[in-house]
Amino acid sequence: MSTIGMEELQISPSDSHPGKDQQAAGVGILLQIMMLVLSFILGHVLRRYKFYYLPEASASLLIGLIVGGLANISDTETSIRAWFNFHEEFFFLFLLPPIIFESGFSLSPKPFFSNFGAIVTFAILGTFIASIVTGFLVYVGGLVYLMYRLPFVECLMFGALISATDPVTVLSIFQELGTDMNLYALVFGESVLNDAMAISLYRTMSLVKSHASSGSNFFMLILRFLETFVGSMSAGVGVGFTSALLFKYAGLDIDNLQNLECCLFVLFPYFSYMLAEGLGLSGIVSILFTGIVMKHYTYSNLSENSQRFVSAFFHLISSLAETFVFIYMGFDIAMEQHSWSHVGFIFFSILFIGVARAANVFSCAYLVNLVRPAHRHIPLKHQKALWYSGLRGAMAFALALQSIHDLPEGHGQTIFTATTAIVVLTVLLIGGSTGTMLEALQVVGDGHDGSMREFQSFEGNNGYIAPSYDDDDTSGNRLKMKLKEFHRSAASFTALDRNYLTPFFTSQNGDEEDHGKKDLHIVID
Amino acid sequence: MSTIGMEELQISPSDSHPGKDQQAAGVGILLQIMMLVLSFILGHVLRRYKFYYLPEASASLLIGLIVGGLANISDTETSIRAWFNFHEEFFFLFLLPPIIFESGFSLSPKPFFSNFGAIVTFAILGTFIASIVTGFLVYVGGLVYLMYRLPFVECLMFGALISATDPVTVLSIFQELGTDMNLYALVFGESVLNDAMAISLYRTMSLVKSHASSGSNFFMLILRFLETFVGSMSAGVGVGFTSALLFKYAGLDIDNLQNLECCLFVLFPYFSYMLAEGLGLSGIVSILFTGIVMKHYTYSNLSENSQRFVSAFFHLISSLAETFVFIYMGFDIAMEQHSWSHVGFIFFSILFIGVARAANVFSCAYLVNLVRPAHRHIPLKHQKALWYSGLRGAMAFALALQSIHDLPEGHGQTIFTATTAIVVLTVLLIGGSTGTMLEALQVVGDGHDGSMREFQSFEGNNGYIAPSYDDDDTSGNRLKMKLKEFHRSAASFTALDRNYLTPFFTSQNGDEEDHGKKDLHIVID
Repeated sequence: MSTIGMEELQISPSDSHPGKDQQAAGVGILLQIMMLVLSFILGHVLRRYKFYYLPEASASLLIGLIVGGLANISDTETSIRAWFNFHEEFFFLFLLPPIIFESGFSLSPKPFFSNFGAIVTFAILGTFIASIVTGFLVYVGGLVYLMYRLPFVECLMFGALISATDPVTVLSIFQELGTDMNLYALVFGESVLNDAMAISLYRTMSLVKSHASSGSNFFMLILRFLETFVGSMSAGVGVGFTSALLFKYAGLDIDNLQNLECCLFVLFPYFSYMLAEGLGLSGIVSILFTGIVMKHYTYSNLSENSQRFVSAFFHLISSLAETFVFIYMGFDIAMEQHSWSHVGFIFFSILFIGVARAANVFSCAYLVNLVRPAHRHIPLKHQKALWYSGLRGAMAFALALQSIHDLPEGHGQTIFTATTAIVVLTVLLIGGSTGTMLEALQVVGDGHDGSMREFQSFEGNNGYIAPSYDDDDTSGNRLKMKLKEFHRSAASFTALDRNYLTPFFTSQNGDEEDHGKKDLHIVID
Repeated sequence: MSTIGMEELQISPSDSHPGKDQQAAGVGILLQIMMLVLSFILGHVLRRYKFYYLPEASASLLIGLIVGGLANISDTETSIRAWFNFHEEFFFLFLLPPIIFESGFSLSPKPFFSNFGAIVTFAILGTFIASIVTGFLVYVGGLVYLMYRLPFVECLMFGALISATDPVTVLSIFQELGTDMNLYALVFGESVLNDAMAISLYRTMSLVKSHASSGSNFFMLILRFLETFVGSMSAGVGVGFTSALLFKYAGLDIDNLQNLECCLFVLFPYFSYMLAEGLGLSGIVSILFTGIVMKHYTYSNLSENSQRFVSAFFHLISSLAETFVFIYMGFDIAMEQHSWSHVGFIFFSILFIGVARAANVFSCAYLVNLVRPAHRHIPLKHQKALWYSGLRGAMAFALALQSIHDLPEGHGQTIFTATTAIVVLTVLLIGGSTGTMLEALQVVGDGHDGSMREFQSFEGNNGYIAPSYDDDDTSGNRLKMKLKEFHRSAASFTALDRNYLTPFFTSQNGDEEDHGKKDLHIVID
């Protein structure tokens, strides 16, 4: 990421008297903390009264927008304002990692991996399709004077950045209402992995633009992306396994070393993220897999107190980061200069991303259904829910902010304004109507509630409960077929896990972490 | 604080291809995490083998110095180097608050408050004396051509910044070895409060210098300092009480709201720090008192799980911050440009700070002993231990770094180099020999061990055990006298606390938090 965002911090003249800048920083951070507290309390009240039209993320965004608007009207000092500019670097290095790690850490691996093929199809192929379709439509729209005209590569960059969907809001509502576990796994997996895809695509396009060459090496680009993806995954899994071995043999799980144990544990995810970034790979993909591996192996090598602590710790940190991202974004949107002259661009790009997401979801679902056996097809209502869930959040916003620096004067501004409008609209409208949508499509869970809770939970060891594969009907026959099929697809990994990985990477003291494995054993037999 | 430190982050050219800067950031942060992990592991090994000559802080400093030296020799990219420059702003806004809060939070208030008069004398009057003496000696040294000549105000600025003593290393050894509780309270209290005093003095001198006026208003300065101190203390206590009331009435101590409860709890200390800074007061003093109040009142309004979590959380965060500060400092020292031309300045300033600290400790102890009854006199060996414990750490370093920006070319550099040398020498020498010193002075605790542990502990509710006032003899008669005297000094506050504050600010569900109060009751009767 460019460090240009740091410039704004320097607006305050350094020849002002000492302590003055720190005072401004104090006021700025104070305001941010107050908004955070307000968001948490408001979110809590809204949840308590089951008011799903304004989810916590939307509430945070609104708080940011309102306070930012007030600060804009009033004559706030620039040295205080500087604290509210959205710095992409801060976002990518400090806010994003905890959010993604918690996603991986609180995830039960079974439904995720049993839908892995579909998730990867949606995230990689689907995001690619969506980016190309958006870019192409925007380019054509420019050619026929429908909207502001951008060069083709810039259209593709816009397509890439606007294809990054945000998991936060939709998933929190899914969790609250409960829905089908497979749908949840699809939405969750797609939104986490497609961020990585969107960043890679954006950077690749940006490279193409700056070198103005190698645009033809289309397959090289895809190859390079896959390389990045596999490399990042390996790095993440490697760091996870290393941590498991360290905690297995270091003998830190005795009482008075709890602090040391926790310190080391919380450093590993960040290590994984920075390792991948340092190697030029994708930190997001890496930290996601570190999260999954650390939960599965390292976690069971911790002392019981530390287990409880680290779960709560990551949950806390990621809640703070998530809420802060939306406030931060809202405030920045209210303060930033926008070029509203291109209303057409905004209007048509909203239209186009709807079309592009339809092309993504329905074509990929078609492909997935071709391969899957009939009883595991993704039903149309799940496809519709998936299409609807594509709201745009902080990732698109951060990349758009970066495009201001990457693109020529005016072009970046237009893209940024359009993205801002799309983010605000989708977060408020889609976020507010997800509950209604889930009910309308009848995918909200009555009996499914339980299975949802199993999938993503923040508690001790209930991440390992065997998934109950009752999709939409629960006839015994179907269930058996599904289990058999699950057996076939998962058995090889499960056997590897049970016979080699778990004994090797964990201290295996019998009771503690084998709930899941025992259940699984029954299922497989 | 000046934002100049941010400049270095921008060294990397923003026209380099995208992702490049983030890669550099990744490598930089990766190195930092690796050093952190190494420090924790090394510290653990050293502690296990009871090797007190290299405490954890010194080990961290050494690791930073060594890796920094290697990075200096090798041809490291500037964009990576930029991540290792010590930014005062980062230190003051993000690293310092958790360290100070944890000090207050893990502190048992009784010995601290029963020595409050002495602590304030050492911290305020003593630091003032030390600053003036150092400044005066350095000025005279310059006049007689012993050392580099600085203007008088700059000498006083140097005196102020070099009088900030660091608690981390000495206290960790005190905790490890165990020592007299009153000595511990004195060292601890002085080193925390004198940081605040040193900052205030430094800023005041800096103001005097930049406005080149009002140097005569000597008493105005003192008045202004006291105003800051009382204001910050009130702000801190106010925020603490507010948090207690919030948690008492919000009803968050039920199971599934644990995350919300913890989120809000961890935001309050930071709120207090930023509130004080935003008002132009001292964040350090404010957050220290917030810590004390939150532990005493708010803490008991939390659910049991959250209590365990927040204790571990603050301990974790402050360990990370502490270790990181020393690594960061070591790395920066190894990378920074130093003007070693003024070896005389370094040599004599080391001599002078020893003299100044003697003037501080022995004169203040004399004053305190004048007021105190004979049996509560601070014994000479405690005074010696206190004199010896004055190592200089991150606070002096951060202020010296700032003086480069505040003072004319050359002057700031000289001060910075001298401070660096003093920090490295005192951390390594004093840090390494504190154990020996405590043993030589016979203040290391055999039986006293227990009372030490009571004073600062990271566990649930053992912060409230009544202090056992066995100073150096334990005759029943003396004890009784001491208790009476303690009664007199503490009774009014204790009664206020028991009859009004605790019922008002806590939910007082009988068992949970009244261990201490019961004991105290017995003591007082």
